[in-house]
Amino acid sequence: MFSVTVRDHMMIAHSFRGEVFGPAQRLHGATFVVDVTFRGPELDRDDILVDIGLATRHVREVVGALGYRNLDDDPDFAGVNTSTEVLARTIAERVADRVRAGDLGGATDQVTGLVVTLHESHVAWASYECDL
Amino acid sequence: MFSVTVRDHMMIAHSFRGEVFGPAQRLHGATFVVDVTFRGPELDRDDILVDIGLATRHVREVVGALGYRNLDDDPDFAGVNTSTEVLARTIAERVADRVRAGDLGGATDQVTGLVVTLHESHVAWASYECDL
Amino acid sequence: MFSVTVRDHMMIAHSFRGEVFGPAQRLHGATFVVDVTFRGPELDRDDILVDIGLATRHVREVVGALGYRNLDDDPDFAGVNTSTEVLARTIAERVADRVRAGDLGGATDQVTGLVVTLHESHVAWASYECDL
Amino acid sequence: MFSVTVRDHMMIAHSFRGEVFGPAQRLHGATFVVDVTFRGPELDRDDILVDIGLATRHVREVVGALGYRNLDDDPDFAGVNTSTEVLARTIAERVADRVRAGDLGGATDQVTGLVVTLHESHVAWASYECDL
Amino acid sequence: MFSVTVRDHMMIAHSFRGEVFGPAQRLHGATFVVDVTFRGPELDRDDILVDIGLATRHVREVVGALGYRNLDDDPDFAGVNTSTEVLARTIAERVADRVRAGDLGGATDQVTGLVVTLHESHVAWASYECDL
Amino acid sequence: MFSVTVRDHMMIAHSFRGEVFGPAQRLHGATFVVDVTFRGPELDRDDILVDIGLATRHVREVVGALGYRNLDDDPDFAGVNTSTEVLARTIAERVADRVRAGDLGGATDQVTGLVVTLHESHVAWASYECDL
Repeated sequence: MFSVTVRDHMMIAHSFRGEVFGPAQRLHGATFVVDVTFRGPELDRDDILVDIGLATRHVREVVGALGYRNLDDDPDFAGVNTSTEVLARTIAERVADRVRAGDLGGATDQVTGLVVTLHESHVAWASYECDL
Repeated sequence: MFSVTVRDHMMIAHSFRGEVFGPAQRLHGATFVVDVTFRGPELDRDDILVDIGLATRHVREVVGALGYRNLDDDPDFAGVNTSTEVLARTIAERVADRVRAGDLGGATDQVTGLVVTLHESHVAWASYECDL
Repeated sequence: MFSVTVRDHMMIAHSFRGEVFGPAQRLHGATFVVDVTFRGPELDRDDILVDIGLATRHVREVVGALGYRNLDDDPDFAGVNTSTEVLARTIAERVADRVRAGDLGGATDQVTGLVVTLHESHVAWASYECDL
Repeated sequence: MFSVTVRDHMMIAHSFRGEVFGPAQRLHGATFVVDVTFRGPELDRDDILVDIGLATRHVREVVGALGYRNLDDDPDFAGVNTSTEVLARTIAERVADRVRAGDLGGATDQVTGLVVTLHESHVAWASYECDL
Repeated sequence: MFSVTVRDHMMIAHSFRGEVFGPAQRLHGATFVVDVTFRGPELDRDDILVDIGLATRHVREVVGALGYRNLDDDPDFAGVNTSTEVLARTIAERVADRVRAGDLGGATDQVTGLVVTLHESHVAWASYECDL
Repeated sequence: MFSVTVRDHMMIAHSFRGEVFGPAQRLHGATFVVDVTFRGPELDRDDILVDIGLATRHVREVVGALGYRNLDDDPDFAGVNTSTEVLARTIAERVADRVRAGDLGGATDQVTGLVVTLHESHVAWASYECDL
């Protein structure tokens, strides 16, 4: 099994609803360093799993669409806490859509799974993984 | 599948028995940077897998109980080498006990697995993973 | 010359005023990983420059007072952009006040300078350094 | 399940064939920081999965044989692009051969899988994993 | 004194002339993770030392002009070994030219020094610093 | 001004005398990731400040002589706490002796200063710098 990972980041504001969050119920923010991992059992005829340049560009678009925003105002997250877990899943689903749509070229047929990891600090991070 | 990881560390002394260890048979020590990963397929009604604050507190207690000690004197490790692998398993088992006991709140029902990684230096680390 | 550094972090929301900031004029946020470096030419009679435990506690208080907030609402920053440079200076000044007040014990007489570095992502950071 | 990882690196020149590679079709190079992970369900009578010293030595030999070279001239890679994925697989296969040959001592019977990760920069890396 | 640092990277091939280089006399390559630090005593009216976006763009151009190349063929380095130290100086000089030319906007007047650090691996790096 | 840094590590046991150290008065240990930085204003005729291979070898010897030991038993540290600051100074002095003795080849004349940084964990480190 092969995997290829590219790293990007985004800077967002948000707040959480629920006593469990303590002071994080206040409006605050985060830099999320985002690692998107593409997985698959075979390489293509160019001897790669994905075109890293193409992967980087699509991850940039997906992550960039979330950045420099207050996620509390984003209708896509109405009624849900934008926890690190939820944001990892959202990015994974949006990248998955692009893979399925053929946007990643040859990788469309080869990538069988994704893992998205969001680092919220040097001491905490969360991941979401899914099959394609 | 989701995962959440929190990082802590401990500083311990120990020695190893067995020729395979070479100079590490002498009393020496290590800083272990400890990553504890909680895994599970579902989020709770607060949209999280575990309360990171609560997880951090319990990991601190488990890791803190081992720190600033000579592990050669700890009866829990009598007759066993406190290798990085063994310490990763010990920490995983102790955190697992707390999850099973309900100490991590809602996460008790959601966390289905743990991975504990101990970094002994910038060039070597070991992990232990288990289901709950 | 000796130096000792301790690392902490904070998660904040803010926005910037000025066309130069582009999309960062919108409300967004950041995790700042904060490194506070104490500098001085001599060690004390315990053979240390600062008590790392004490330093860690005071840095935690200074950094914690800024965290989980929207800095746009903080009167201490009225009329100023809370750029990474400005926040590094603010934290340095607040830690410097504590050193001068004798809060860091023996280090009060030994620490002759501070450097505060704020990492806003894996690809950008800023520092402020000052003499005491 | 246990795992032990050791890190090394190599510095190589190469070029790629295929339009997908854009400017990387030109002769260029890379530092690959190489992480080799040994996996297995049981520890040996010394309470370790692998002897880290022995593992480090064999990884050094495998990685060192590739380093300080232009991989375009290496007959082992004739007709194949030396992508990060391909190099991860090559290193995994060569380490696997050594494990199977008994070169890693007791680990020969215990190691049931390998993962090799090559970091080509701070923002991109690739892995290959296999069972033994 | 303030400083702001942005990180980028380049992947190049080269060889060295001189017995001191041992196997690195052969054609090989490197990924250089490049940190460019701008230093200055004052912030501008936007409360920043440099516009990070603008700095990132210019560093990208300077570093990008060197990347995906065999530096042995670059006339700018005729007769000189492209050691990590030499490349750090080259990048510093080229960024300095842009600062002096006013390309970094307000930073032109404020930036009084540069430090460029090139990481050639996880265990070795080199820097060049200069006044403006 | 140029600088070149090489990284190594050591694993030691020790204890501290003095109430300020709290639980660290007990026998414990540490992994120190050691960065040795050589500084100087000029490059030699090979276009380098120091031969990284030679520097790595000498740093290995200096650091290796301290590793896998209980520093409480080392007569070189009798009556002194082996704090991170003290160990940074010790390593700097021992590397400085080798530079002065001509062990680093051409670098003997070029290296005008040293900085040694010891990372005791992911959240604390200390440095000692000196002129030659």
